[in-house]
Amino acid sequence: MLASSAVLRRQHFLIRSLGSYNNQNHTQRIREIKTVSGSSTMEADAENILRRITPILDPNRHKGQAGKVAVVGGCREYTGAPYFAAISALKLGADLSHVFCTKNAATVIKSYSPELIVHPVLEESFSVRDDEKEAVSTKVLADVAMWMERFDCLVVGPGLGRDPFLLECVGDIVKLARRSNVPIVIDGDGLFLVTNNIDLISGYHLAVLTPNVNEYKRLVQKMLGSEVNDQDASQQLLALARSIGGVTILRKGKSDMISDGNSVHTVSIFGSPRRCGGQGDILSGSAAVFLSWALQSSTAPGNSATSLSNPMVLGCIAASALLRKAASVAFENKKRATLTSDIIEHLGQSLDDICPAC
Amino acid sequence: MLASSAVLRRQHFLIRSLGSYNNQNHTQRIREIKTVSGSSTMEADAENILRRITPILDPNRHKGQAGKVAVVGGCREYTGAPYFAAISALKLGADLSHVFCTKNAATVIKSYSPELIVHPVLEESFSVRDDEKEAVSTKVLADVAMWMERFDCLVVGPGLGRDPFLLECVGDIVKLARRSNVPIVIDGDGLFLVTNNIDLISGYHLAVLTPNVNEYKRLVQKMLGSEVNDQDASQQLLALARSIGGVTILRKGKSDMISDGNSVHTVSIFGSPRRCGGQGDILSGSAAVFLSWALQSSTAPGNSATSLSNPMVLGCIAASALLRKAASVAFENKKRATLTSDIIEHLGQSLDDICPAC
Repeated sequence: MLASSAVLRRQHFLIRSLGSYNNQNHTQRIREIKTVSGSSTMEADAENILRRITPILDPNRHKGQAGKVAVVGGCREYTGAPYFAAISALKLGADLSHVFCTKNAATVIKSYSPELIVHPVLEESFSVRDDEKEAVSTKVLADVAMWMERFDCLVVGPGLGRDPFLLECVGDIVKLARRSNVPIVIDGDGLFLVTNNIDLISGYHLAVLTPNVNEYKRLVQKMLGSEVNDQDASQQLLALARSIGGVTILRKGKSDMISDGNSVHTVSIFGSPRRCGGQGDILSGSAAVFLSWALQSSTAPGNSATSLSNPMVLGCIAASALLRKAASVAFENKKRATLTSDIIEHLGQSLDDICPAC
Repeated sequence: MLASSAVLRRQHFLIRSLGSYNNQNHTQRIREIKTVSGSSTMEADAENILRRITPILDPNRHKGQAGKVAVVGGCREYTGAPYFAAISALKLGADLSHVFCTKNAATVIKSYSPELIVHPVLEESFSVRDDEKEAVSTKVLADVAMWMERFDCLVVGPGLGRDPFLLECVGDIVKLARRSNVPIVIDGDGLFLVTNNIDLISGYHLAVLTPNVNEYKRLVQKMLGSEVNDQDASQQLLALARSIGGVTILRKGKSDMISDGNSVHTVSIFGSPRRCGGQGDILSGSAAVFLSWALQSSTAPGNSATSLSNPMVLGCIAASALLRKAASVAFENKKRATLTSDIIEHLGQSLDDICPAC
């Protein structure tokens, strides 16, 4: 059950943090949009953003204050993806990282790491009779609802699979997160879900979509009724973000492009030429942490600089830049043998190089 | 279900790549065969081949383009073998590596590494009633079929076991791969299956068999009706490859010998005196990656050098040489304690020593 006082507190916090962005100097935003209209996107000053939003490690803080994230994903076939997303969040500095997955995935994900809190609550069609579905669906939602208010961000999609019943339940979880004003990062099969049910996130300013080449193509076809236009990529991304009511989109590619419908930023710093599966999961887990920090920092007293930008966009820029930096260090060491786990091992040092913990 | 356009695209690609080999200068091939007839096999220029077929790491490429392989293997008894084959593929530079195994093997294989995608789809006799077998068999094939078109190569056999019902299903998977023109590397119990059902792969030019001493003996007895003749080993290997309609055979031994019925090559560079179990699995997983790369490179514009040899043979030579190099480095470090996992840890560096990633 939702604690109404907690809901109110969160709403109050988010209204303040997004409000400070929305009320920013109008001329500044017009300038950004004009730059985009001239097809010249801005390379984000990612290192500066990382330094601005990453919180100081204050010994007076207690467990949870550096971030509590949850990943919704992990099914019969996929267990690596939710693990990568959840452990990346911890390795960046979050305090608690949860995974909500199916029963058979849970045992495996738990075995990857004792650091994660893994909830075996999701169900796939093959394990549920038709006449049980309504009751199971209600139970799944209740199992997640009792935790929802504790999370600073939800990551929906890593290793989710495409089972129709499971996706239906996850749709309900997305609605619940939205009602609770919990920010949501959507990746992988979560994008398959929302592309086919765009109302789930349309107009939700606390949603971030992180599509790869194919996922972006499907979004553009569905929302703009056209094909991907790489000649005018920034305009198309801007239009796409606007068509989904101002959600933030991180379009992954050789350069990552980020837009919330108001501005377009690119992150082009060199990462790694390896394209092994799992790097997108690092990105979604990292974005969850960074956007939570950006939301926090945007409401910190006297932090006017950060309030000039949408915390969702700042979180995406930070995540993109840090993944690239960690990937480049991992590749320097392991070359072609670089795997996603190797990149994760370099997240902490890469962040510390930019903003030392002490 | 197979996407017919994907099947056609693959057919077109493979016809081109094998065509460029089959149309090579006839005199050159006659010369190779004559050399063999004189009982003098050629030591392959393995390092040069490795450099020729290993693709450049291009940041413009996206996930999957450096290779997607799948291992069919893993049952109640064996879980290490399919893991070794699948992880070796990733460590060499493939982007995605899948395993199709039984349910009880899947949990364990997943737990070895979050980098693999493990499908718990195979069934053994003890878990299926006689009256269910037809339906289960159909379901197994359907579960694999929905993925088949995505793979650049299938490895059949590591840790497969000898359960009759399971092998029957795997026979259907081999037929499906063949209809879909997906190259197949066959090792371990996969060789037990095809030796007893030679029509499964006879005449399939995209098949590679990697027999050890005993598996080779059974193949020779079955196909040539004779015992292994080490005095004229190359002639016998040539005859064996021809008798199976031009499949490529990698005969493992002190020196590895490779033939597609047209030529015989040896790889004799020093590896390791350790004979711990699992090294054959590294070989099969590596061969899958290298032959995929060789097929790709044989169709690359202007790559006339590579088109002078059968991509299957080039892939085997590369895999054999690289395993030996990695094994020798591992043995140098670990001596008698060298295990298969130690060798796998040296695959990346060994490849990079020959063809640097950047």
